Amino acid sequence: MDSNLKKWSAEFIGTFWLTLGGCGSAVLAAAFPGVGIGLLGVSLAFGLTVVTGAYALGPISGGHFNPAVSIGLAVGKRFPASGLLGYIVAQVLGACAAAGVLYLIVSGKADFDAAKAFSGAGAFATNGYGARSPGGFSLLSVLVCEVVMTAIFLVVILGSTAKRAAGAFGGLSIGLCLTLVHLISIPVSNTSVNPARSTGPALFVPAAMGDLWLFWAAPIVGAILGAVIYNALLSDD
Amino acid sequence: MDSNLKKWSAEFIGTFWLTLGGCGSAVLAAAFPGVGIGLLGVSLAFGLTVVTGAYALGPISGGHFNPAVSIGLAVGKRFPASGLLGYIVAQVLGACAAAGVLYLIVSGKADFDAAKAFSGAGAFATNGYGARSPGGFSLLSVLVCEVVMTAIFLVVILGSTAKRAAGAFGGLSIGLCLTLVHLISIPVSNTSVNPARSTGPALFVPAAMGDLWLFWAAPIVGAILGAVIYNALLSDD
Amino acid sequence: MDSNLKKWSAEFIGTFWLTLGGCGSAVLAAAFPGVGIGLLGVSLAFGLTVVTGAYALGPISGGHFNPAVSIGLAVGKRFPASGLLGYIVAQVLGACAAAGVLYLIVSGKADFDAAKAFSGAGAFATNGYGARSPGGFSLLSVLVCEVVMTAIFLVVILGSTAKRAAGAFGGLSIGLCLTLVHLISIPVSNTSVNPARSTGPALFVPAAMGDLWLFWAAPIVGAILGAVIYNALLSDD
Amino acid sequence: MDSNLKKWSAEFIGTFWLTLGGCGSAVLAAAFPGVGIGLLGVSLAFGLTVVTGAYALGPISGGHFNPAVSIGLAVGKRFPASGLLGYIVAQVLGACAAAGVLYLIVSGKADFDAAKAFSGAGAFATNGYGARSPGGFSLLSVLVCEVVMTAIFLVVILGSTAKRAAGAFGGLSIGLCLTLVHLISIPVSNTSVNPARSTGPALFVPAAMGDLWLFWAAPIVGAILGAVIYNALLSDD
Repeated sequence: MDSNLKKWSAEFIGTFWLTLGGCGSAVLAAAFPGVGIGLLGVSLAFGLTVVTGAYALGPISGGHFNPAVSIGLAVGKRFPASGLLGYIVAQVLGACAAAGVLYLIVSGKADFDAAKAFSGAGAFATNGYGARSPGGFSLLSVLVCEVVMTAIFLVVILGSTAKRAAGAFGGLSIGLCLTLVHLISIPVSNTSVNPARSTGPALFVPAAMGDLWLFWAAPIVGAILGAVIYNALLSDD
Repeated sequence: MDSNLKKWSAEFIGTFWLTLGGCGSAVLAAAFPGVGIGLLGVSLAFGLTVVTGAYALGPISGGHFNPAVSIGLAVGKRFPASGLLGYIVAQVLGACAAAGVLYLIVSGKADFDAAKAFSGAGAFATNGYGARSPGGFSLLSVLVCEVVMTAIFLVVILGSTAKRAAGAFGGLSIGLCLTLVHLISIPVSNTSVNPARSTGPALFVPAAMGDLWLFWAAPIVGAILGAVIYNALLSDD
Repeated sequence: MDSNLKKWSAEFIGTFWLTLGGCGSAVLAAAFPGVGIGLLGVSLAFGLTVVTGAYALGPISGGHFNPAVSIGLAVGKRFPASGLLGYIVAQVLGACAAAGVLYLIVSGKADFDAAKAFSGAGAFATNGYGARSPGGFSLLSVLVCEVVMTAIFLVVILGSTAKRAAGAFGGLSIGLCLTLVHLISIPVSNTSVNPARSTGPALFVPAAMGDLWLFWAAPIVGAILGAVIYNALLSDD
Repeated sequence: MDSNLKKWSAEFIGTFWLTLGGCGSAVLAAAFPGVGIGLLGVSLAFGLTVVTGAYALGPISGGHFNPAVSIGLAVGKRFPASGLLGYIVAQVLGACAAAGVLYLIVSGKADFDAAKAFSGAGAFATNGYGARSPGGFSLLSVLVCEVVMTAIFLVVILGSTAKRAAGAFGGLSIGLCLTLVHLISIPVSNTSVNPARSTGPALFVPAAMGDLWLFWAAPIVGAILGAVIYNALLSDD
């Protein structure tokens, strides 16, 4: 099979899984009465989509599942810039497909109320700032948080997959890093660090489309920053 | 010792452990007053039955513990179809034995009330749709959810155990994938993705027997779908 | 240094850590107002004492930290019966020392009330049945539960450390199995599966001494059963 | 690039991440209404900062991220004493930078109230004893707890990175040990075992500065004790 098509398939499926698993756990299970999984469960879910995707699909495509990661890896000289467009298209399509499947499942709930399900801070697992931040954090707070989180995420990715690293542990280290990022920052921005993951759910929430620019800009800036810091200070080349 | 008997023993014990551990944690500990483990703890328990079973018993039988997995692996050309009958019988017997042991433990509770313990959505960890779905999800939602979850589960299994993969991490990746599947879907269907796990508890809950067909059909369809997608788009052959 | 003394030191420290970490998290943090770790956190703590002990001390002594495990490994021909006495003495002493340190910490709480801290089901992390079972489970339920849990624990230990297994994952598999055992059975017996862990806290709780026999008998019977089942049905010899 | 500068960069970034991730999750997410991550989520966050830092940065600097660890490793003959000053300066600066970034994020919350955010036991994730202990534990309890926790932490570090150990699992074992330490001891001292982590947040909380001496003294004493015990009883030299 054509090698590019196989890679794009892996990125599509991996980002589908990241978005369905992470956002699905948030929408379906986080606040389930009495026994809900809470933000801890959602954080674990997001991380495990990457752990499982990394071990199952990583050998095919590298397991980015995130446009910011692909861009950061290109800046860090680990991924050819010529591959960016195909990867990002596959990632965004995967996230949108996941949001569609999640909508299909959610809308079959007996007491489903579309008005309630798709409005308010964090609705349908969308990201937001100011009035649409889960904890009411300002644009500046959200910007700083998303940039710093994505920067460190890239440092962890680049370091955990460096030649000197214990390679096979990379999937675990990187996936659990995404769990950690969520443990910190869900209350701030509902946690993006991934423009594709932000785009899928926003398609169903008009108010979230207005904030979406930030969840493309901040993760990409953060990823570039992380790659630059890594190569300047930490690289083993 | 006869090689088939050893494999069937491993599948019996592994599925016994999956059902006792996963359903047992749900029935005994999920809603324990004040400090219950919730759906997050149950999700972790189901996943850890597979992590522990995979490292302890995987080298013997492959560590399926699930008829849908065995069928998906056969479709994906990783397991001989001639082995299906023996494996599935062992798995279903293991799950039924686990439900029996769990009944024995539960019924020794001081305030045990059989009428309450075995009726209502999700009772005795049974799976269900519509009125028997924990969150009141429709047949269609449950069907879509179980098919998609099992399909991705198979993609993760096939990918994590492919020749190009970091083989020894397979048990972790696959077990944590089952945790992830539960983090998403317990509110929808109480999560099956495993017909044997659904069958054991249903023996004790008359109302659940009526829904049981779906938890054979959907996981098997999903597993076949996952294997077909994997071999068409992602295989390294 | 004398090889036996080094092994006994490792078993003493490992069982000290298991008891201090597991029982300490239960007594200090499980029910902390509003943000307590619950039974899920306690389950994780018990398992992580074994994960950390296995990787740090396992290469020295094998990392048993549990008289039932030592006996089960002897029955399973993985540990010389002549080593049992020294190991078990070291384990019990370690657990008692841990209970003493935990007492020292707990008694320095501003509102410490000894009468309350050391009475009632599960007090000071003691194990019990009937009126002293956290969920009010009968002697028979507790017996069945402890025997079955310890038996599977031994199957996981023997399988995860067999020659055919992915050896380095043994510590993770075995430690997470202990987490799983706790996720299921804390409400039943407060979970022992380890006579040393049961003995330490019981020294401070007179009522628990009356139930202690069961938490020596049941785990040892379960461990022997697990080893016999493993060697009869699953061994690779 | 200069080798020392690279190591100091790794220690700065790693301790920045430890403090931002651990303290950030505590301040931002632990008590989020209805779905907060609680002390269990905070414990996991602290541990995952070390897991991710160890795999990403460990090959550069050894991944200490903690002055007590550096001192303990020097006592244990695993790290040259001549390297202590540079490492500790980098660690403290990293922790202070993290506290600054966290302040920037937190102060952008719509209902931010500085008086409330920076006073009371455990405020801004500071450590404390007596009236400033989250659970009201005495100076003696906090001292014993911090010394014992750090001592065992060092035993786990030294054992998990010994020549005889399964080396690549060290990052997991050590990081999860920090999770375990937090599962036990947050209610006692808000958990330090790391003087740098204690110093950063204390800069913003005047009352915490008065208790800070203990969170330098106790972890360092504990680390030395752990290294001495390890080398006397457990070393493979």
